[in-house]
Order: sequence, then structure tokens, then C-alpha cells
Amino acid sequence: MNLKLRPEKYFRYLHLPGLFGARRTKEILSVNPTIIPLREEAHEVAVFVFDYDANSIEEKNLPGVEDCFAYKTSGHTTWINIDGLRKPDVEAVCNHYAVHPLIVEDILSVNQRPKMEESDGSFFCLLNMLYYDQDKQAVNHEQISIIMGKDYVISFQEDAIQDVFNPLRDRLKIATSKIRQHGSDYLCYTMLDLIVDNYFVVMEKLGEQIEEVEEEVVRGNNPRSLVRITQLRKELIVLKRNFSPVRELMNGFLRSDSELLDDRTIKYFKDVYDHIVQAIDLVENYRDIIVSMQDLHINNVNLKMNEVMKVMAIVTCLLAPATVIGGVFGMNFDAIPYLHNQYGFWAAVTIMLAIPVWMILMFRKRGWF
Amino acid sequence: MNLKLRPEKYFRYLHLPGLFGARRTKEILSVNPTIIPLREEAHEVAVFVFDYDANSIEEKNLPGVEDCFAYKTSGHTTWINIDGLRKPDVEAVCNHYAVHPLIVEDILSVNQRPKMEESDGSFFCLLNMLYYDQDKQAVNHEQISIIMGKDYVISFQEDAIQDVFNPLRDRLKIATSKIRQHGSDYLCYTMLDLIVDNYFVVMEKLGEQIEEVEEEVVRGNNPRSLVRITQLRKELIVLKRNFSPVRELMNGFLRSDSELLDDRTIKYFKDVYDHIVQAIDLVENYRDIIVSMQDLHINNVNLKMNEVMKVMAIVTCLLAPATVIGGVFGMNFDAIPYLHNQYGFWAAVTIMLAIPVWMILMFRKRGWF
Amino acid sequence: MNLKLRPEKYFRYLHLPGLFGARRTKEILSVNPTIIPLREEAHEVAVFVFDYDANSIEEKNLPGVEDCFAYKTSGHTTWINIDGLRKPDVEAVCNHYAVHPLIVEDILSVNQRPKMEESDGSFFCLLNMLYYDQDKQAVNHEQISIIMGKDYVISFQEDAIQDVFNPLRDRLKIATSKIRQHGSDYLCYTMLDLIVDNYFVVMEKLGEQIEEVEEEVVRGNNPRSLVRITQLRKELIVLKRNFSPVRELMNGFLRSDSELLDDRTIKYFKDVYDHIVQAIDLVENYRDIIVSMQDLHINNVNLKMNEVMKVMAIVTCLLAPATVIGGVFGMNFDAIPYLHNQYGFWAAVTIMLAIPVWMILMFRKRGWF
Amino acid sequence: MNLKLRPEKYFRYLHLPGLFGARRTKEILSVNPTIIPLREEAHEVAVFVFDYDANSIEEKNLPGVEDCFAYKTSGHTTWINIDGLRKPDVEAVCNHYAVHPLIVEDILSVNQRPKMEESDGSFFCLLNMLYYDQDKQAVNHEQISIIMGKDYVISFQEDAIQDVFNPLRDRLKIATSKIRQHGSDYLCYTMLDLIVDNYFVVMEKLGEQIEEVEEEVVRGNNPRSLVRITQLRKELIVLKRNFSPVRELMNGFLRSDSELLDDRTIKYFKDVYDHIVQAIDLVENYRDIIVSMQDLHINNVNLKMNEVMKVMAIVTCLLAPATVIGGVFGMNFDAIPYLHNQYGFWAAVTIMLAIPVWMILMFRKRGWF
Amino acid sequence: MNLKLRPEKYFRYLHLPGLFGARRTKEILSVNPTIIPLREEAHEVAVFVFDYDANSIEEKNLPGVEDCFAYKTSGHTTWINIDGLRKPDVEAVCNHYAVHPLIVEDILSVNQRPKMEESDGSFFCLLNMLYYDQDKQAVNHEQISIIMGKDYVISFQEDAIQDVFNPLRDRLKIATSKIRQHGSDYLCYTMLDLIVDNYFVVMEKLGEQIEEVEEEVVRGNNPRSLVRITQLRKELIVLKRNFSPVRELMNGFLRSDSELLDDRTIKYFKDVYDHIVQAIDLVENYRDIIVSMQDLHINNVNLKMNEVMKVMAIVTCLLAPATVIGGVFGMNFDAIPYLHNQYGFWAAVTIMLAIPVWMILMFRKRGWF
Repeated sequence: MNLKLRPEKYFRYLHLPGLFGARRTKEILSVNPTIIPLREEAHEVAVFVFDYDANSIEEKNLPGVEDCFAYKTSGHTTWINIDGLRKPDVEAVCNHYAVHPLIVEDILSVNQRPKMEESDGSFFCLLNMLYYDQDKQAVNHEQISIIMGKDYVISFQEDAIQDVFNPLRDRLKIATSKIRQHGSDYLCYTMLDLIVDNYFVVMEKLGEQIEEVEEEVVRGNNPRSLVRITQLRKELIVLKRNFSPVRELMNGFLRSDSELLDDRTIKYFKDVYDHIVQAIDLVENYRDIIVSMQDLHINNVNLKMNEVMKVMAIVTCLLAPATVIGGVFGMNFDAIPYLHNQYGFWAAVTIMLAIPVWMILMFRKRGWF
Repeated sequence: MNLKLRPEKYFRYLHLPGLFGARRTKEILSVNPTIIPLREEAHEVAVFVFDYDANSIEEKNLPGVEDCFAYKTSGHTTWINIDGLRKPDVEAVCNHYAVHPLIVEDILSVNQRPKMEESDGSFFCLLNMLYYDQDKQAVNHEQISIIMGKDYVISFQEDAIQDVFNPLRDRLKIATSKIRQHGSDYLCYTMLDLIVDNYFVVMEKLGEQIEEVEEEVVRGNNPRSLVRITQLRKELIVLKRNFSPVRELMNGFLRSDSELLDDRTIKYFKDVYDHIVQAIDLVENYRDIIVSMQDLHINNVNLKMNEVMKVMAIVTCLLAPATVIGGVFGMNFDAIPYLHNQYGFWAAVTIMLAIPVWMILMFRKRGWF
Repeated sequence: MNLKLRPEKYFRYLHLPGLFGARRTKEILSVNPTIIPLREEAHEVAVFVFDYDANSIEEKNLPGVEDCFAYKTSGHTTWINIDGLRKPDVEAVCNHYAVHPLIVEDILSVNQRPKMEESDGSFFCLLNMLYYDQDKQAVNHEQISIIMGKDYVISFQEDAIQDVFNPLRDRLKIATSKIRQHGSDYLCYTMLDLIVDNYFVVMEKLGEQIEEVEEEVVRGNNPRSLVRITQLRKELIVLKRNFSPVRELMNGFLRSDSELLDDRTIKYFKDVYDHIVQAIDLVENYRDIIVSMQDLHINNVNLKMNEVMKVMAIVTCLLAPATVIGGVFGMNFDAIPYLHNQYGFWAAVTIMLAIPVWMILMFRKRGWF
Repeated sequence: MNLKLRPEKYFRYLHLPGLFGARRTKEILSVNPTIIPLREEAHEVAVFVFDYDANSIEEKNLPGVEDCFAYKTSGHTTWINIDGLRKPDVEAVCNHYAVHPLIVEDILSVNQRPKMEESDGSFFCLLNMLYYDQDKQAVNHEQISIIMGKDYVISFQEDAIQDVFNPLRDRLKIATSKIRQHGSDYLCYTMLDLIVDNYFVVMEKLGEQIEEVEEEVVRGNNPRSLVRITQLRKELIVLKRNFSPVRELMNGFLRSDSELLDDRTIKYFKDVYDHIVQAIDLVENYRDIIVSMQDLHINNVNLKMNEVMKVMAIVTCLLAPATVIGGVFGMNFDAIPYLHNQYGFWAAVTIMLAIPVWMILMFRKRGWF
Repeated sequence: MNLKLRPEKYFRYLHLPGLFGARRTKEILSVNPTIIPLREEAHEVAVFVFDYDANSIEEKNLPGVEDCFAYKTSGHTTWINIDGLRKPDVEAVCNHYAVHPLIVEDILSVNQRPKMEESDGSFFCLLNMLYYDQDKQAVNHEQISIIMGKDYVISFQEDAIQDVFNPLRDRLKIATSKIRQHGSDYLCYTMLDLIVDNYFVVMEKLGEQIEEVEEEVVRGNNPRSLVRITQLRKELIVLKRNFSPVRELMNGFLRSDSELLDDRTIKYFKDVYDHIVQAIDLVENYRDIIVSMQDLHINNVNLKMNEVMKVMAIVTCLLAPATVIGGVFGMNFDAIPYLHNQYGFWAAVTIMLAIPVWMILMFRKRGWF
């Protein structure tokens, strides 16, 4: 029985890849590996290393994770980025850098809640990179783990399809950039900042969706609007679920009194904190707007439906008296007055027309249409 | 009068076995035993003992609870697991291990709120194991009490139908496992971790239910969907009621500065705390999804109903003018024009057809169907 | 103008006796006694006293409150219970035991919010005993005030129709009971415990009501269900209003560091605290269930109504074409084809039947019924 | 442009005099007095003074505010009450008692949020007296400012139509009353207590309104009930807006460690705090009741409407088959069977009656009416 | 790709200019300038300087920002106001006054969340000036940044269309005004006070809108009311989003123990804090009113619709029996009774009329219309 596949199937359907909770690969449970299988291993792993200080920089794509071990003692700030998660690789790197086994578990498991942990000598933080998938109109996510030590930063990404860290690489190559003047804490800040900034790009995409839906709702011409609104509400749940813990995460950095964080860098972490607070605010506002749009949409649909029903009911009602009069003079009684009168027919037709006209006037007076 | 039976009857109906509050077996009230009867006693009690340290392990199924008393002074870590609650047995064990009478009461009573208490020399925690009953499509629960002392852990289960601790037994037999290297605190952690991990299995089952219901709602073909949605909402209330106090419970361990908890083990308790927070989060998200699904479902039902009513109203309305014209020329006046004309009938029929056609065109223009 | 009578009239109507706020008998206002009259005085007052320690017990029904004054210096623990509130009696007792005038006011006034006050040498707590009135299907309440001093407990009840303290009296007579071994703090705990335990009996009654209403709602056969649901919501408001302050009250005992509370007794107060938390939890859950039941009910009513309207609309619609055809061949034109044909009538009738049959098939295909 | 007039006009319409926020008369803005004009000045000002201690009392109505200056050094407790706010008067008194200019501003401006400020040597508190206006069925308010110093209390009222302090005056004249035995802090407590007690009178009036509306809703015979419910909801918003800050205000007194407040008086302030908490609680409960009444009302209206529509639809539907049959035998075909049969007519009529009867039976069977 | 333009387009549509989150101009991202372009630069920049103390004042409009550098060492309090944001100008000024680069970024970026930062030697705060645009019936905003140092205040405005600081300039010229007696902290307070006071003007405008909408809703004659209600709800979201952080901002000043803030000035900041709390309160109340108005409106629309449908259904239903009777006597059977009777026709017509009259009486009796 492969439980792992199910939630993914489920959430592909729901377009909620970031919602389902942590299914971890636990040491204890591995005696019974059929219950909770290990994370699907990445097909290939890409490792690159930046080893830099203010004066020099070395950039390398490495064939295997073992090749990066040497940089631990380089004396410069080292950034090791590993794309693709494979259990032996992660364990090898983490062992070399003395990372706690529980953290290794967190890195390897899927759908973790963003979190941050400070232990002696290093910070660990785990959060999700979010992408907006234009085709499925859904928010996708990629789990990113960052370990920051005195003079190194190690980052793990699930895969490297859209690498959010590209601008950072370009920046690193410029000798005069701030990032080259500072240590690993500034590097870590930059990475968190890039991730949080990207959240705003995703929200902007959702904003466009909301705009489209609102146009639809105001024009009132699409019965599927409610399905879209429901979907947008779900996307916002995903966002909120991802953002709220990131605020705690950033707060963890701010409250820390670790020596690893330079006083000057704390200001920058505060900046990222401000942005994530703003993002959470914005999600809340989007939610309010969507809810009031849903109210408006449902009311519009009812209004339009009611208009149609009203016209139908009025037409049916207007014609009913004529039917009755037709029936009256269609009866086969011998003695029906005016039947033989020359103008009888015209009189009857006139009454048939007069009654609806009178009804219309009365309805108008009461403001019924 | 047997009050105890009622809540169970009631909640069997509601499928909410975990909801009804504590009806305790109180010393004070036992003078009037007809008001609140004692918990129904278990038919049979199964006792097994693990007595282990890093080097040796002894595993035994014991005939009675008295046989486990000797292990108190074994010098190793002892795990005593008792399946089935019988008042004399529980009291005997608890007296032997000097457990407070109020805790004995808690163990023996049903439907307790999860809680945790630290007294000098031991920790007591009580929580519910949750199972998803596929037949009744409802969440069942079994109360588990754990007492952890310096070198012993005593666990009480209501019965042993589905033993969640099986993986733990297998693990204990492996001499090199972490659990053998640590003391009773790590054993206690492992048990809590297994219980909380199982919560995710239950939530996954609910997730599948939600998926099914959502498919139904989107296809819009099942009038009973709302009953299912209501039931899922109730299941989520049960989960929330069980999860929230477990967070407090775990927090109690984290805040404790007891010597019983090793500094290295605290990290593991923090891990379980993170998972229960994640589970609470997830329940909240499920609830949001269910509520927005309910909105969608109710709207879909209305939409479909409205569509039917609209078509009916339109058809009735379209045919009304023809009825009137039929009536007009069915009157028995002597002088009705065109009555003797050769094409009179065809003209009338043409008008009968033309009016609805014109109405259809006009309705289309206004976007009414 | 007698303002006091009004809220009672009002809430008898609403079945919300516990909801209306405190109208106190204030010293200041008593210069203008017509504005807020004094509480209606009890017709008769019953006083009984238990004077006990571990070895001896004395139980007496006293003719007047003055007769209990002598027990103040008995050296044993004294429990004075006064059923029925009469201003002179309460003031006499309270003066004798040096109770603050504001507390006397609280005891004498009606509809107080549960509260607890610690002053030097004594604890005062006021809360409501709740009863479920089967006839009116409403929750009634009786105000109980408890004053606990070093070796005495004084309790005031509004009247003694259903005395919740009966089990306590029986228990007191048993020389080996815990209550005889402890002092006034344990006596006070026992009383609070009995009151809070009784809350669960009331909730169970409400639980049965909810069960009945839910059965009705699921069967969908009672248009008055919503009135019952509304009433249950109001009963739950009463419960919540009574429970929440009791939690604060118990918390007040737990946080107190008075010498009056023995360290061993605190554990028992913690136990009552746990139960009231559980009761509050349960009220919250009941509320959620009731709200989702209301949604279900309203939807069921709509669904059923819609089904009826749909069938009516369909039948009317199916017969409309036949009416038209009847009208067509009922016209009096000279030249109507097939009128003289032998099978003309049958052809017309066949068409009259064929059209509804075709319509039914089409509606079925679209899933309209 | 006179902005001040607008909010008043607006809220006269809305019956929400207590809702609109503070428009203050600011020193800065007074250079441009047309933007925010000063508060409309009172036409006449009434000043009275009580100067008392336990032994003596002097009561005077003074012609102008300057005449009360002498009492500052009387050595007794002085209560100066000023009805009607006129800028020069308020400034004169406040200058004499060294009150901060910002507080003078607060006193003079309208629609302030209740607040309390402690500065060295004095307490300032501002709150609203509430009246229920029977004619407009709305809650009115009057702003009251109280300044309490070591041996004086100064109170400012907007006008003196309904003077809530009358009982206090009567009480002051009684030499043995508590108020004469205590200082200015007890006087201040008495005033706050009178104001808060009056809130309960207002709530009682609203309670009667709610009772009336509920009777209407349960009888279901008034289409305007929703308008009344909406208005009651708004009145409750006014109350909540006035009550919540008063709790903070009272809390400010309780937390203060000023020497002005005697330890014995603090108990009395705690009493007022308890009452305002109770009032807030009650407003919350009223709100819950009103919301559930609104649900009930809307559902009742729908239910009744649906009943009418159902009967209409059923009658129309029952008669449709008869119309068709009439049409069939009204056709002019030559060969219509049974047309010449003696019992043909009666057979047709029988069928016409039989079909609706059969329909009625079937509808009954399905529980449709 | 110009992402910046999109949110503005979007929010122009939504009339929510203040909602969309911060898109900052980041140093890091500027390596890839096409992703997030810089803020659109102002076309022209207006600089004016006030340099004053209690005795003297100098006021100047300067051609460029560099000309104000000299005032730094003037020894007086200097206020530099810059209308129009141009990157080089802002950077030049900020460099001269040693402002942190992150603050420069905040000043230059759009749609920032209001915030406040205290660093050694200066305070920075950023908030939005709000204007009510009568034409678009929407709330507009302009970002204002204020930097306050020991003897200077620098303010940056996006543009100077409606200058809220005009009253301040007038005030400054009066030698005896308080503002001339105090330092830069009082100047800063005055600016914040003017901005917050202006919030009340905006809310008053919204209040008038709410009044209009309510009149419409109570009269019930505008189907577009819901669109307006939805828009007002969105405007209130904008207000709330702008007000809540300003409370934190003011709180930051109150909690600060900087030497820059004089003890006497703190009282004034507390005053502004009170006003923003009041504004937040008011927004909350407006929201409650709008929601209850929306309920009322939807119900009114349904009520009116239902009335029309009811009348139509009743008229149709009343005429149905006459149609049937007409059909009965229109049948062509040979033997129809009373057909040849002289009064047969009149009897039939009488029945035709009698049935609806009887129906009307019965409907009336049941209170159906």
C-alpha cells in the first residue's frame, strides 16, 4: 500500500499541492517500510558551490556531493546548493556538517510546515518556494531547506526547474556587491528575501485572476464564476498556510541573540519580516474581497434568474384572462348574449386586449416592472 | 437509571464517539452508585512487559498485573503495557507505583479531555488514539494513558484490537536501535510520536472522503452531498477537539524542567509538537475547504433547480399566446372575420407559431436562455 | 414602577432565566427604593449545620440563623447551609463572620455573574446551580454563594427544592471518608465539584434534545425544527454565560497562594478546573453541531419545497401543448384540414400525447427529474 | 462649510448619535476655523457645589463658574458640577485646577471615545451617560467628564435634562451615609457606579424591544420585523462601542497605584468593573439572540411565501388536465368517438374530476401537502 | 515586462489604490531590472524649507535639494518638505542626513505598509495620506515619509496636489504658537496629527455614502444598491488596512524612550494614538452596519420579488377554474345538460365568477394576501 501517492493524487485534483500535511520518513517506522514509503528520490542531483570573500570567488559545478566537503575548511564563506533530494547525498552532507538527524528527516520529507530551528553553531530553516502555474491556474510549491553556519550556507531544493536563486548568482560575481562584503548571514538573508519577494509575484498573478473574476461578476455573464471563486479561495488558503509560519520563522531570526547574526544584518532580516507581514495582510484582504465578490455574484445570479421568472410569470398572467373570455364565448349554450350581434366578436377581442393593458398599467404603478 | 449508556447511544447515532465529555467515576459519588455507574469493566486484561537496557532485553506476557511488580527494582528500563481496563488491576498497579488517586480516576473514566500532569517523580499523560472506521465512515477513538517514571513507562489501553504500538515492539528487539540506547523518556516520546503520526493516517482517510465529496459537488449529481458534508464537518469537530489539547500536552513536556527529560530527548518532543501543530493547521484548512464546498454545493443545487424552473416557465409562457388565439377563433360569434376565408386557418396557425418564435428571439437577445 | 418584575417576565417568555444581568440592591439607591426594589424575600428559611472533625460529627437543623453563631468557636470544621435568602438573616450571619458589605449585596441580589473573591481570611464564590426543566424544556438556575474561612464554610441557596448537596451529607456521616480527614478547603472543593458535575447532567439532557432534533432534521419531517434549533441555541448561550466565569473562578483558586488552601487540596481544585474547561469545550462543540444542523435543515426544507414546485411546473408545462392543439382544432374556421378525415381526431390526440412523452424523454436526458 | 452639522444629521437619521467619532476642536486647526468649527456652545450653564466632610455640608447653586474657585482651599471635599459646556467657563475652571490643555480639549469636543487618564495629582475620565428615547426608539447619550483630585471632584455634563446624579445629592445630605465618611475617591466611585447602573436600565428597555420583536417573529405576522431587528443590531453596536472602553477605564483605576485611591475604595471600583464586564457580556448575548432571531424570521418569511406558492402551483397544476380534456372534446373533428353517446359528457366530466383527485392522493402520499 | 503597471491598472478598476502590496526597488534585483522596475519618477520636485526657533523664522522655496543641506547646521529646528519623489534627490538628502539605505528604499517604493522605525538619532515613519475622490467615489492615497532628527524633520510626499500641511505652514508663521516654542518632536506630532485628523474627514465622506445607501435600501428602490454596498465594503478594507498599522506606529512612539521625544510631547502623541484607535473602532462599526444593511437589502429584494410572484401566481390560479368551466361547456357532446336552457350561460358565468371570489375569501382568511 502506497499511501504517499494518494494525497498527491488528491491534491492534484484540488490544485492544493501545498496543503497536505507532513508525511515524514521516520527512522522508527522504517522497520515497516510499506506503511509510509520514503520520499521519491530525485533522478539526478546537481551540486554547485560558491566559495567567496570580498576579494576572491570560486564557482564550481560538482559531480557529487562528496566533492564539496573540502570547502568546509576553506576559510571563506561557502555556499553549497543541492538541487534534487537523494537520501544518501543529504545524509552525507549533513553528517559532514554535523547536522542533527531530525533535521535531515525534515529535509527529506515532503509537505513540511515552514519552520526554523536554531541549534548551537547553526540555523536551519525550511520553507516553500511558490510558483503560479498558468496552465492549471494553481499555485505550486517547491520545498527549500537552508542550513546556515558560521561560514557556510547549504541549500537544498527539490528540483531546479525554475531557479529563484539565479539573480543571487549574478550578484555574487560582482566584487563590489554588498553580499561579497558580508558573511554567511547576509547570504542567508538574501535567499530568504528572494523567496519572500517571489511570494508577491504569485500574489500579483492571483490579483489578476481576482480582477478577471470580478469583471465577470460585475458583468454577471458567467455561471461558472462561483467555481472560479471557490478555487481562488482555496489558493488563498494555500498561501495563508505557507505565509503564516514564515512570519514565525523570520521572528525566530529577529529574537535570536546568536553570534552568527551580525547586528547590521538583523536590520535586513527585519525588512523581510515586514514584507511577510505585508503579504499576510494582503492575503487577508484578498480573502475579504473574494467573499464579498461571492456575495455579489450569488445575488446577481439570483437577480437575473428572478427577472426572467418575473417576466414569464407576468406574460402568463396577462394572457390568462383572454383565455377565459375565449372559453366563455366558446361555450355551446343556445342563449349566449351578443353572439349574434354584429360587433360581438370585436367587443370580446377588445375586452381581451383591454384587461392585459389595464393589468400592465396597474403593475407599472406598483413598480413591478 | 443508567446515564452512561445514553451518551454512547447518542453518539453512536451522531458518529461522534469522541465528543461527549467526561463522566467520571468519583469517590464521592460512589455512595450513590446509581447516578453515575462505573466504567464498564473489560472482559479480559492482557499484560506484557519489556525490561531492557542497551545490552539485554526481556519480553513477557504476564497472566496478571501482580506479576509485573517485581520489575520495579530491575534496574533496567521497564515498559508495562496493559490492554483492557479493570478497576482492581489499575488500582493495584498504580498503588504499587505510588500514582495519585485522581490520576487513577482519570485512567478509569471515559471520554476524558487529553491532558498531561507532572508530579514529583513522574509524568502522566492521557490522550486518544484515533481510528477511521471505514464501515461507519466515522472516526473512532481509544483512550490511552501513559505514566512515565524514572526507569519505567506504564501504558493503559482500553482494548487491543488495533495495537498502534506494534512497530515499537519490533524496534525494541533490535539492540542497536536508538530506543535501546536511551531511557524511559525516549520510550515515552516514541509512543506519543506513534499516536500523533497515526492522526495523519486518519486525516488522510478524511482527505479522501473530502475528495470524493468534492468530485460529487463539482459534478453536482448527488442531492445527499450536503448530508455527507455535514458529517465531515462533525468528524472535523471531533478531530479538533482531540488535537488541540494534545498541543497543550506536548507543550507541557517542552516547558517542563524535570530531570526525567534528557536534554537530547527534548528535541524529539519538540518534533512531535511540530507535528501536532501541523495537524491542527490541517484540520483548520480542511474546515475552510468544506465550508467553501458547502457554499458551492448549495449554489449548484439552486442553479440546477433554477434552470429547470426557468425552462418550464418559458415553455408555459411561449404556449400561452397560442392558447389565446385558439380561444379567439373558437368563440361562437356569428361575425368572426376570416372564419370563412380559405386561408384563415393557416393564417391563425402561422400567427400562433410566429409569436413564440418572436418571443424566443427576444428572450435570446436579452440573454435569458 | 417595578423594574425588577420585567426582566423576569421577559425571560420566562424567552426561557432564558440565567441571561439577564445583575440588578443589585444598592445601599446608595435604597434612598429611592421605588427604582430598584429589593430581591423578593424567601418565605421560609431552612438552616442546617454540620460540625465535624475526623473523630466526631454533629448535625442539626436549626430554627433560626442566630443559633449557628455558637459554632464559630467550636474548634471543628463547621458547615452552615442556609436555604432561602432573607436580608436580615444574611446580614446577621455575615456580620457575625465579618464578611464585607459588598459581598452581602452580591449574595442578596439576583442574576449575578459567577465570581470569586479572596480577602484576608476567607474566600467568597458565587455561581449558579443549573437544572434542566423537562416541562418547559429550558435550563433553570439557582444562585449559590459559598463563603469559606479557616474552619468554616457557609453556603447560601435561593431555595432547597432540588438539593445538590445531598450526596455530600451522606458522605459526611462516614467517619473514614476523605472529607472528614480534611478541612474546610476540601469541603469547599467537594461542593464546587458537585455543582460542576451537575452541569454535565444538564448538558446530557441538552444532548438528548440535540439528538431528537437531529433525527427530525435528517428525516426532514418537521417544519418547527428551526424553532427548536433556535431555542437550543439560546439554551447554549445560557450555559456558556454560566460556564465561562466559572473557569475564571476556579482559576482564582489555583492562582491563590492563601494559607487556607492546603497543597494537597489544590490538586483537587485543578481537577474541577479541568472539568469546567471540558464543559466549555463541549458547549462550543454543541454550538458548532447545532449551526451545521440548522444549515442542513434549511437546505432540506428548500430541497423538498423545490421538488414539489418542480413537479408542479413540469406537469403544467407538459399539458400546455395539448391545450394549444385542442384550441387549434377547436377554432371555427371553415377550412381546417383533416377535420373531416376519419382519423383526424385520433391523429390530433396522438400528437397531444406524443409531445409530452417526447418532452419527458428530453427532460430525463438532461437529468431534470 | 460646516462639517459638524453633517454627522449629526446623518446619525439622527440612523439613530446612532453615539457612533460617530471624535471631531475635536484643535488648537492647530483653529487658525482655519471654517474647517472644523467649535462645539456648539451651551445656551446656559448651571453650576452647583457641594462642600462637605463627615460633620458639615454646604450646598450652593452658583451664578458663575468663578464663584466656585474659593472652595479649592476649603479643606473639605468639594464636588463642583457644571451642566452645559461653554468654552470660556471650562477653560477658567480647568486653569484654576491646573488641568492639562489636552484634557480641556477632550471635555469640549463631542463624540469622544470613553477614556481615562491619570496624571500627577488627578484622575480624568470621560464617558457617556446613555438614555433610551422611547419616542425614537433609539439610544441617546450625554457626554460626562469627571476630574478627581485630592479633595475635589469636578463633573461636566452636556446638559442637565435628566440628571443621573440626583440620588447622589439626596444621599450626600445624610450625615451618616458612607459617602460622607469617605473622600473624593468614594464620591468619584459613586458617580461611575450610577452611570454604569443606568446602562442596565437602558439594556432592560432594549430587552423589552427584543421581547416584542421575538413575539412578532414567532407569530410571524409582521414583514417589518427585519427592519426592527436591523435597528436593534445597530443600537447594540452603539452600546458595545460605549461599554468596551469603560471596561478599560475602570481597569485603569484598578491598576493605578495612586495615593488618591484609598485601599478600601479600590474594592468598590472592582465592583463597578464587575458590572461593566457583565454589561458587555449581556450585549454579546443579546447580539447572539438577535442574530438567531433574524435567521428564524427570514426562514419564517420564506416558509410562508413557499406555502402560498405551493398551493397556487398545485391548484394550477390540478386544473390543467381538465383544460386539456375540455379542449379535446371541443375540437371540431367530424369523427370524435362518444360525442353522440348519451353519457359521453358525464364520462368526460368524471375523468376531468378523477384526474385531480388521483393527483391529490398521490401528492398526499408523497407528503407534499 | 512591466509588472508594476498591472497592479495599478487592476486597482484603478477595483478602486483600491491602497490595497496592493509593496513592490520594492531592491538593490539585489536591480541586476535584473526588467523584473521589477523602479518607481515612476516624479516629473518635477518642489522643495521648501522652514528654519525656525521661538524668535525667528525663515521660509524658502528652493530650486534643488542640494540647497537645503546648509540648514543642517543652522542651530534652529529645520523642516524640509519635498514634494515629488526622484531617486537621486532622495538619495542625496538621505546621504546628507545619514539615513540607512533600507529606509531610502522604503521611501522610494510604492504601496508600503505604514511603519515606524527608530534608529539611533532619528525616527522614521511612513504612512498614507487618504483623500476621498468624489468623482470615482473611491478613497485615494498618497504616501508620506517623515524623518525626524534632533533638530530637523524631513518629509517626502508623492506629489503636492492637495497639501495637508498647509494649516501647519500658517501656524508656523505665528511666533506665539506652541509649535514655535517646541522642537522637532512637536513638529512631527503636528504632522501626524494632521494626517490622522484627515482620516476622519474621509470617514465622514464614507459615512455620507453609507447614509445614502441606507436611504436607498430602506426605500428599497434601487437594484444596484448591492454593488454600492460591495464597493463601500472594499473602501472600508482599504481604510482598515491603512489604519491598523498606524496604531502600531503611534504605539512605537509611545513605547520609545528616546531622548528625542520630550516628556511633555509624549502626551500629545498619546492623543494621536487615541484618535487612531477611535478611527479603527469606527471602521469596525461601519463594517457591522454595512453588513446588516446588506442583509436588509437582500431580504428587501427577495420580499419585493416574492410579492410580485405571489400576485402573478394567484391571478393565474384564480382564472384557471373559469378556463376549465369554459372548456366543459365548449365540448361538442350532443347531450350536455342545461345547454339549451335559457339561463344556462348565465349560470355558467356565475359559477366562473363565484369560484375565484370564494378562493379569494379563503386565501384572505389564511392571510395569504
